[in-house]
Amino acid sequence: MPQHVVIIGAVALGPKAAARFKRLEPDSRVTLVDRGAIISYGGCGIPFYVSGEVNDPTELQSTAFHMVRDAEFFRATKGVDVRTETEAVAIDRAAKTVTLRHLPTGREELLTYDKLVLATGSRPNKLPVPGADLPGVYAVDSMEAAKAIRAQVSGGGISRAVVVGAGFIGLEMAVALTDLWGIETTVVEFRDQILPGVSGGNLARMAQRRMEDKGVAFRLGEQVRAFEAGGSGRVARVVTQNAALEAELVIVAIGVSPNSELARAAGLSVSDRGGIRVDETMRTTDPDIFAGGDCVELRSQITGAPIYLPLGSLANRQGRIIGTNLAGGAAKFPGAVGTWCVQLFELAAAGTGLTLPAAQAAGLDALCVHVSQLDRAHFHPDKGLMSLELVVERGSGRVLGMQGLGVNGDALVGKVDVVAALLPAGTTAEKLAGLELAYSPPFSAALDILNVLGGVTENVLQGRLRGIAVDEFAALWAKREGGGRFFLDCRERSNAEEYMNKYPEYWHNIPQGQLKDRLAELPRDQGIVLVCNTGARAYESFITLAHAGFGDVVSVEGGMTAVLAAGEKI
Amino acid sequence: MPQHVVIIGAVALGPKAAARFKRLEPDSRVTLVDRGAIISYGGCGIPFYVSGEVNDPTELQSTAFHMVRDAEFFRATKGVDVRTETEAVAIDRAAKTVTLRHLPTGREELLTYDKLVLATGSRPNKLPVPGADLPGVYAVDSMEAAKAIRAQVSGGGISRAVVVGAGFIGLEMAVALTDLWGIETTVVEFRDQILPGVSGGNLARMAQRRMEDKGVAFRLGEQVRAFEAGGSGRVARVVTQNAALEAELVIVAIGVSPNSELARAAGLSVSDRGGIRVDETMRTTDPDIFAGGDCVELRSQITGAPIYLPLGSLANRQGRIIGTNLAGGAAKFPGAVGTWCVQLFELAAAGTGLTLPAAQAAGLDALCVHVSQLDRAHFHPDKGLMSLELVVERGSGRVLGMQGLGVNGDALVGKVDVVAALLPAGTTAEKLAGLELAYSPPFSAALDILNVLGGVTENVLQGRLRGIAVDEFAALWAKREGGGRFFLDCRERSNAEEYMNKYPEYWHNIPQGQLKDRLAELPRDQGIVLVCNTGARAYESFITLAHAGFGDVVSVEGGMTAVLAAGEKI
Repeated sequence: MPQHVVIIGAVALGPKAAARFKRLEPDSRVTLVDRGAIISYGGCGIPFYVSGEVNDPTELQSTAFHMVRDAEFFRATKGVDVRTETEAVAIDRAAKTVTLRHLPTGREELLTYDKLVLATGSRPNKLPVPGADLPGVYAVDSMEAAKAIRAQVSGGGISRAVVVGAGFIGLEMAVALTDLWGIETTVVEFRDQILPGVSGGNLARMAQRRMEDKGVAFRLGEQVRAFEAGGSGRVARVVTQNAALEAELVIVAIGVSPNSELARAAGLSVSDRGGIRVDETMRTTDPDIFAGGDCVELRSQITGAPIYLPLGSLANRQGRIIGTNLAGGAAKFPGAVGTWCVQLFELAAAGTGLTLPAAQAAGLDALCVHVSQLDRAHFHPDKGLMSLELVVERGSGRVLGMQGLGVNGDALVGKVDVVAALLPAGTTAEKLAGLELAYSPPFSAALDILNVLGGVTENVLQGRLRGIAVDEFAALWAKREGGGRFFLDCRERSNAEEYMNKYPEYWHNIPQGQLKDRLAELPRDQGIVLVCNTGARAYESFITLAHAGFGDVVSVEGGMTAVLAAGEKI
Repeated sequence: MPQHVVIIGAVALGPKAAARFKRLEPDSRVTLVDRGAIISYGGCGIPFYVSGEVNDPTELQSTAFHMVRDAEFFRATKGVDVRTETEAVAIDRAAKTVTLRHLPTGREELLTYDKLVLATGSRPNKLPVPGADLPGVYAVDSMEAAKAIRAQVSGGGISRAVVVGAGFIGLEMAVALTDLWGIETTVVEFRDQILPGVSGGNLARMAQRRMEDKGVAFRLGEQVRAFEAGGSGRVARVVTQNAALEAELVIVAIGVSPNSELARAAGLSVSDRGGIRVDETMRTTDPDIFAGGDCVELRSQITGAPIYLPLGSLANRQGRIIGTNLAGGAAKFPGAVGTWCVQLFELAAAGTGLTLPAAQAAGLDALCVHVSQLDRAHFHPDKGLMSLELVVERGSGRVLGMQGLGVNGDALVGKVDVVAALLPAGTTAEKLAGLELAYSPPFSAALDILNVLGGVTENVLQGRLRGIAVDEFAALWAKREGGGRFFLDCRERSNAEEYMNKYPEYWHNIPQGQLKDRLAELPRDQGIVLVCNTGARAYESFITLAHAGFGDVVSVEGGMTAVLAAGEKI
């Protein structure tokens, strides 16, 4: 029997659910309601419009074949009725009606539904500080904001900008402002690293250094106390506990919160963090009301705990699930692992699953193994460095997550996607070591970096190798005078010489190939820290020393390549 | 107890097994034996040395940190003894000895082993035709051959070349000769497509067109009958059943065969095709003798049948397994799915698992679904086309394989690797539709092409869409005069106009958005063939027609994009 489905929210999930449902039930009616005038735009594209890589903002609203996805498009091509500039103000679940208010006129109307979909999305978090509403302080939450920012930067009146928040959007905006427009940009982040929550600290430091090389300044561990206006009444300064930063433009990108007031008022279950609770079929606690996208809480497929992941890619897939189930299907959305990628100038960062701190916070006995390797055959001219960190559970060897950096972004994303695809059903370091991946010199190494990462992790788990991360190495090095550690560079002399000359007392060198014949040169009463270029020769050396009875030996994961990339001053 | 392990063959698998074993059992002794003077080189890099992308041939023999992997390197850094220019001529399994012959001197020696590893590799197949041994006719099987070819092409005396065989190496060599050296190159292949066995026909045709655009000529379905010498005594002509092709250089790349004579003579089980039989631990029928790499037969993880996959990436992983098991471990190599990639000028081709013909030949009730889509967000300036074909089993929806083409090779390889990683445990179209992959506009689309491919395949499997491939469309179009088909372009008029003007009787146009209001214009007594740009609007149109009771409707998979890419003349 034909139904009437009302969908509240027409960005990402709403249109996808509507189109899928109409294909399955062409005789049913769909009304798609949105508060905004512009619907179905690719919000993730806003930083690329601001940067100038995307020139025409309507491209963000268009299909791949250049048709603008407006109300008329949905009517003609999908058979979906669209009401823009219309807010849903109340749901009567007993009567199965929703009250709509047309914003320009204020006129209200009661719409009856058979099934309702809440795709109300999220809103940007605001800083609770003076001046947060000053002109020139923007959130990146709408096409209107995007156009205003672009107009300002392309107008040429902006020489300094501050971005508050070093998550995906904050960093993308920092890149956009610096790269094309040459604006002096400072990122302020109250946590102590960029990409907090999604990247490990060492990778974050490496990425930060690369962004600093491109001119972006960072102030980590700083909190914004106020925004101050200049003579024009527009924002002119960002005040933190440490500094007053001059800026004609401020972007606030400190995360988003679910729009769930409507759901809560209707008596649906909503979490403390504000996410609407849904089951695997994307139904709320009312079986006739579905919800998805940025307004819902999801289940982590790794820990089973609730998580909030406001990502456009998840919204699109949930939209298809909801469309199927509106038509009587039984499609399931089993949760998420959290997979992401971001371009930071020529560097890409990406990850999936848990970081080491996140795993530990979830009570898991986890460790993290770092590998840096060329992303193609080492003899191929297009090779570049890729660094990956695998987070695994001790004992079981279960993979909990992986994060990485790489100069060939597509290659990095490919590796992360492989692990992302395996995570829901569970995988192990051993399985990664045995993965059969495509090999040809222009695309990968004969022993793929994922094979190597799995293998090294197996070695660590089985006690055949003890690695330390860059920050642990830096801490040991800082205490070199009284720390009782012997630092051994196991590269060829030509690689080690620079450091030997600089630190004749502390930087020692025995090339790995000579090590087993020169064991007598090593102290038996000191811990030994092995370092090479990326870790391979330090591993061989570790084996040699372990076999010769040296008990307290560690190898620096990622070697000097990782140490220098993280900006450690050695 | 320390053992003596003898490994015969020192390219790829042999060195890997040796190094792994020595790390696990530093007290044991390893002797690595090879017929050649140059060991442990990256044979897959030879086409890139010939092309000039790799300039110094020793790079193919070096580690990532520029140490040449010669006998001294293995002795010093891995503790492995190496005998080069030494052939293993007989194995006495009862006495556990192997007879070695030093090739330069002819001196023989008996070596006792505790465990033996056969890593004897493969040799290139030769054409059984007159002139196969003429100077100027090369196989790509050794550094010596590579240097000879490079010397010839860089000498400038070559203006025309013929490559026999359109597999990976043949195509890579054709690219190498054409791209940098500007040599007029013709590829002769006796089967009717390039990449036979690993790629479907439609993708192969698309790739072939792109190579033809770059100047490579193809003669498919042609067999070489003879190589003829010129006045100098060097090769001058390649004679097929159809033509005599002038060429100063000939590359024969028609596959390889396992070197298993030694194993067979020792009474080990060897398949009819010549592959040494091994179990999951890589042991031969003698538990003290392991074998791996190009000399063994593997098991397909998809069909369970024996397969032969001479790939360097498999050899490396098998080497690690053998190294582990030599030291008493229980590592397993469960078989392979067959994953590959190759760069063809700016285009990449890649795949994993079975093609449709291979699946059908294995007795599986399979079908293939094609999707062409942009590989990034459609508004991102770096976007390029990616085409993927998913091979699935009807009924179960089990994925049997996937092949694809793309201009962003790393992105394509990433998608193939995801499916390759999922294939061994089995996956379905539905699972691909739900994969959680990394999304950001510079790297992918919000609904990833793998999600789309999975979704479209689900629709096909559930009867919601009937697609036809490019070659099927071409066959119908060829019969347009009496074939009783109505060809309907459901793009906007501006896209369709060119074809409507050219074929006013046969090419019809109703934009998808107008279709449900213009159904009366369609014939009820003819089959309808829907086409759009890549397939999305044809899918919407299919739904509309099916709902309106049109029974005989098909949609062209990949749309006009795929049709034109395959070089069909419309």
